[in-house]
Amino acid sequence: MSQSYERVYAQACRHARESALLSACESTLGWDERTMLPVQGAEYRAEQMAYLSGLIHQRRTDRQLGDWLGELAESPLAADPHSDAGANIRQLKRNYDRATKLPQSLVEELSRSASLGQHIWEQARRDNDFPRFAGVLAKTYELKRAQADAYGYEDSPYDALLEDYEPGERVAHLTQVLADLRDALVPLVAQIAASGRQPDQSILRRSFPTARQSEFGRKVASEIGFDFRRGRIDVTAHPFCTSLGPHDTRLTTRYDEHFFSTALFGTMHEAGHGMYEQGLPADQFGLPVGDAISLGIHESQSRMWENLVGRSESFWRHFFPQAARIFPEALADVSPEAFYYAINDVQPSLIRVEADEATYNLHILMRFELEQALLSGDLPVADVPSAWREKYKSYLGIEPENDADGSMQDVHWSAGLVGYFPTYSLGNLYASQFFEIADQELGGLHQQFERGEFVLLREWLRDKIHRHGQRYKAGELVERVTGKPLSHEPLMRHLRGKLGRLYLLPG
Amino acid sequence: MSQSYERVYAQACRHARESALLSACESTLGWDERTMLPVQGAEYRAEQMAYLSGLIHQRRTDRQLGDWLGELAESPLAADPHSDAGANIRQLKRNYDRATKLPQSLVEELSRSASLGQHIWEQARRDNDFPRFAGVLAKTYELKRAQADAYGYEDSPYDALLEDYEPGERVAHLTQVLADLRDALVPLVAQIAASGRQPDQSILRRSFPTARQSEFGRKVASEIGFDFRRGRIDVTAHPFCTSLGPHDTRLTTRYDEHFFSTALFGTMHEAGHGMYEQGLPADQFGLPVGDAISLGIHESQSRMWENLVGRSESFWRHFFPQAARIFPEALADVSPEAFYYAINDVQPSLIRVEADEATYNLHILMRFELEQALLSGDLPVADVPSAWREKYKSYLGIEPENDADGSMQDVHWSAGLVGYFPTYSLGNLYASQFFEIADQELGGLHQQFERGEFVLLREWLRDKIHRHGQRYKAGELVERVTGKPLSHEPLMRHLRGKLGRLYLLPG
Repeated sequence: MSQSYERVYAQACRHARESALLSACESTLGWDERTMLPVQGAEYRAEQMAYLSGLIHQRRTDRQLGDWLGELAESPLAADPHSDAGANIRQLKRNYDRATKLPQSLVEELSRSASLGQHIWEQARRDNDFPRFAGVLAKTYELKRAQADAYGYEDSPYDALLEDYEPGERVAHLTQVLADLRDALVPLVAQIAASGRQPDQSILRRSFPTARQSEFGRKVASEIGFDFRRGRIDVTAHPFCTSLGPHDTRLTTRYDEHFFSTALFGTMHEAGHGMYEQGLPADQFGLPVGDAISLGIHESQSRMWENLVGRSESFWRHFFPQAARIFPEALADVSPEAFYYAINDVQPSLIRVEADEATYNLHILMRFELEQALLSGDLPVADVPSAWREKYKSYLGIEPENDADGSMQDVHWSAGLVGYFPTYSLGNLYASQFFEIADQELGGLHQQFERGEFVLLREWLRDKIHRHGQRYKAGELVERVTGKPLSHEPLMRHLRGKLGRLYLLPG
Repeated sequence: MSQSYERVYAQACRHARESALLSACESTLGWDERTMLPVQGAEYRAEQMAYLSGLIHQRRTDRQLGDWLGELAESPLAADPHSDAGANIRQLKRNYDRATKLPQSLVEELSRSASLGQHIWEQARRDNDFPRFAGVLAKTYELKRAQADAYGYEDSPYDALLEDYEPGERVAHLTQVLADLRDALVPLVAQIAASGRQPDQSILRRSFPTARQSEFGRKVASEIGFDFRRGRIDVTAHPFCTSLGPHDTRLTTRYDEHFFSTALFGTMHEAGHGMYEQGLPADQFGLPVGDAISLGIHESQSRMWENLVGRSESFWRHFFPQAARIFPEALADVSPEAFYYAINDVQPSLIRVEADEATYNLHILMRFELEQALLSGDLPVADVPSAWREKYKSYLGIEPENDADGSMQDVHWSAGLVGYFPTYSLGNLYASQFFEIADQELGGLHQQFERGEFVLLREWLRDKIHRHGQRYKAGELVERVTGKPLSHEPLMRHLRGKLGRLYLLPG
């Protein structure tokens, strides 16, 4: 009897792994599209992608797969939800159930609307034409409500959408955690602004030749533990990380010759994502245990390496002398202290992707609040620009001059990504909570960083987080690893400590 | 009734175009494997490629497709074999019939043996270990005989294999044309050797910085008509050209800082292939009329641009001043005449891929003769090294010192490519025959080249050759375009004229 379950499990796994072979083709085509594709190749590429995603969707909603998974879910193999088989069966069944809940017509309309929406968004943003964008917004939220209804939910339609990005997370819980964060963060940002202090930012805006930035970035990525035998790095306008196979993780970055931070912190951020991917169990590639838990956990890895490591004093004790050798013209007269202060500048600003470590979360919070109001219908689309300005005013004390730099700055809504934004802040919260424990368990991470040692942290992350894939849900994992539920306190402790010292804030 | 044929034709075309979407994925994965793939990504990539080629083979042998094509072949749509529909139906049916003639077990064994064979060949060649390679050779020829039997043939099993590379060509005809070529070429090469003259080759072996070679190569490729909006160029150890879609043709080249010819003539060669691909009718992509006729015709395009254009005096009247500006250190004291002579040096040599325009064909001829003898069984595998040496001795007057530079120098046989070699010489023959007519019809190509005008030649090739795809067979096309059957004379006229002048040969 057990043997027969084993056989069914093997069949279901083979089915999933074959779908993954096709998904990995899709990822390769997508990577190539963003890095290599000749301009006139785009149309045929879109046709290929649409054909492949149709094939994959067919496979993922294959009734035979559903029957196998139904049988397996009742079997002894599923008894331990944290065993490889138990976790794979649970998550494959969850994915199958969700995929089959959406009618084909809605899947196609969502896809068409996202593709068209991004096109219109680009033009509307360029022309600062909010009324044009409003049509896209209205359509997006109408379809997302339909999608939430098709998925089903207990408390809020937002929960149903959140499940696509942060499985198991709920809006009620998230609202509480993010409100706590907001209540602590707004006064800290105000305190910094009131301190009157400011680092000399111009240091970072000197000339940093691109080829040398690339050399330095590769060196840093490699020293912190990104494996270039199993990956590579290229250049794109919008940096990203993608895996094309169990041993093929690709990062991209971008260079600004006159701003040091763009490429290096971008590279460290993507290398953080990349090390998570490289730490997933390769023999489970194509199955849930070989796949990342959630966007929030993914983002916790990128933010940890970018901010908690890359923007730390100890990191630069190790790397500043090397940076000064590689960029002698720019850094000869700069002290490590001035440099460290400059890369940690906190300033309220209008554009999310350019925001610093502290204010970044306030950009996310207001989007989280606005998208809930849009989804419930409490906020009419036409009122978005004014609501946007009010939120910026109240959280950051500044207001955008136009909608292009206001409510039209992000691609997410026009691309149908509703419920995605909070995962960025979740990433910051998880990162600090993990880092605090790692620091305790590994006995002083910063002393290690000063010596150029990053391997213990990477191995700890691999052991505690990466190698489990989707064995646990994000919330479970946090409790398991840190012994506590998710909280805003570790992040606030980190920010208060570091920024308090830099801006000489009272107590 | 006609309407119903139209519907069946549309279905068959959609089927073929969907297979092409998958083939283009395969090409993308293949291009990426050769240009971008991290070392450890190779294993999963091989798994993806095997899965995709299985899917594609299933589609191409789909009985439903066979039924449609059987019906269409008898329909009025197929009446004119040179109409789009007529040519597509004829060639799709031919491809279907061939694909279904091979038993699945033989397809898999050929693929496994080719993949393993290349692996062993690499090691045997590195270790100069012919006995190890002999096992691969024996296996290859055994499987190729089985493949020829499965395809079926009238006169010779070699015909059945040739059909994979040069459809419609027959060994009897080829033997005659290539014997004529050999009989004219051997004395010419001997005459050149006896002339005692030799250009100063050292000019080409000075320092040519890679970045500037790349700049010059892109400029040349672009001026002769390769469209970079629909293509790109990258670097690989073994240059190639591949199309990933109707508007996405990719070339590769390689650089030798201390030998000028490698990159530039390699780039022009691949750009010649690339312009053929770019000239195929994009709206027929995925159908035979949107696809190249044969390897020989493909090679005629690459050889024409590499040799008849790129190694011509008029080409360098235009480009030498630019080259001298880009490489001032290497070329300041060089006359255009000395440079032109150096790039046209003729010398018997042992390695095919390094051979000059004249001796190259002798390398091909002896391989053509040897592979026929191997296939028929007249030549035992163990006798290949001595037969190889004898042929080199008699055609070129030199002998290899070891088998690594002798019978193990090419990848073809170990990769299962038997019947492929002659297409290289066919390419040279077709190229000269086309070029002679183009020169007559366009009123003096060399005057145009001197002025930097290449567009008339490219448009002529597009009109006469590229835009027809597989509408005609290679032999038909040659007769249609040049008014004569294939002959060795145009190539010999070209070589005698040019080399006669350079080596001051008697009349």
